[in-house]
Amino acid sequence: MATLFHHPLCPFSRKIRLMLGEKKFSVDYVEERPWERRLDFLMLNPSGEVPVLEGESGAIAGHYPIAEWLEEKGGATPLMPSGGLERAELRRIVAWFDDKFHKEVGQLITYEKIDRRFMRKENGGGTPDIETVRVGISNLKIHMEYISYLLEQRDWLAGSQFGLADLTAAAHLSCLDYTGDIYWQDWAIAREWYARLKSRPSFRPLLADNIAGMPPATHYTNLDF
Amino acid sequence: MATLFHHPLCPFSRKIRLMLGEKKFSVDYVEERPWERRLDFLMLNPSGEVPVLEGESGAIAGHYPIAEWLEEKGGATPLMPSGGLERAELRRIVAWFDDKFHKEVGQLITYEKIDRRFMRKENGGGTPDIETVRVGISNLKIHMEYISYLLEQRDWLAGSQFGLADLTAAAHLSCLDYTGDIYWQDWAIAREWYARLKSRPSFRPLLADNIAGMPPATHYTNLDF
Repeated sequence: MATLFHHPLCPFSRKIRLMLGEKKFSVDYVEERPWERRLDFLMLNPSGEVPVLEGESGAIAGHYPIAEWLEEKGGATPLMPSGGLERAELRRIVAWFDDKFHKEVGQLITYEKIDRRFMRKENGGGTPDIETVRVGISNLKIHMEYISYLLEQRDWLAGSQFGLADLTAAAHLSCLDYTGDIYWQDWAIAREWYARLKSRPSFRPLLADNIAGMPPATHYTNLDF
Repeated sequence: MATLFHHPLCPFSRKIRLMLGEKKFSVDYVEERPWERRLDFLMLNPSGEVPVLEGESGAIAGHYPIAEWLEEKGGATPLMPSGGLERAELRRIVAWFDDKFHKEVGQLITYEKIDRRFMRKENGGGTPDIETVRVGISNLKIHMEYISYLLEQRDWLAGSQFGLADLTAAAHLSCLDYTGDIYWQDWAIAREWYARLKSRPSFRPLLADNIAGMPPATHYTNLDF
């Protein structure tokens, strides 16, 4: 059986875990702490980043090649429109969250609140920088507005069909939901969309994540939040 | 005819220009200065980033959806292996340059040397920060070593076939070559690989780029550099 090397609060790992769940592909899951720079893991992925999917014939390193490969394989749920501009629009939204949201919001908050907690002091570990977290939370509002804007016109983020855009956005948001940084009461339409995703079976393993010494926010596992 | 909105020294725009050249797809080219935040352009791409490919039936925004869409369309030159782990390995290298190289090298050097030169002072414009450029140049060495390591084992960056990994890497490197920041004499094997790319017809439009007030380094257009 193939093995997914992932970290519970890495949004890119979560995206792949959600995809594997939707497609009903079975793999073993191994938690990797990329900041420890384990040599065996660096040999699988020279960039040292999760996720990595290792099978008998070799490894696929990084969320972008894994996601496209899984979609090409098929599985139980197609997660992209079959072609044309709708497929391009889905990939635009995927990149929005993987690049822009992560840079402007997720990285600032998660890195400060989670990663630095587990890193050694000489590698940048320590208590969160409050000002960095504040910038991330301020930027988060702009992205929640954009999600709301899209959902006023569409059932799902990239159009009329559920798919990889929704899973990608939910993967990123779910990390911030773990730390209690999303004020859902301010975002009714986004909240309804997220509730639909959260109740899918593919989401259950994410809701079971619990990092030692840093339990999730109280509403994190609640389907009626 | 479709229109590509691009910026001459944006590596992501260059990647798409190279792809269009290889595939022999004809489009009109319009130079966009994304930092001016032109409203018509923001309506094409809410993230405000180049490249954007606009056709009669709609627009495709961002290098990732455009690149995958062009590859799905086919064209004169296939730029990805047709499947399996080789296709995943190619996408790993593409992400290496688009994410890691850009963050650790390209963005630091090009943003300081080019973008800030054209931006208004209130938006961050000004003279380059030498320390930031120095960090970028120091990181560049690590990436040139990685390119050399790959090319010691392979004819092209992702394997035995020329493709999108080579075009992506060359697009990023060519921006730094414009500003004269690559010391090719130190990197024999990478230089031989880059010379092969530079002599391809798809590369010619890039070599013709000339930014007003900031001409390219003297060897930039030279095929025997």
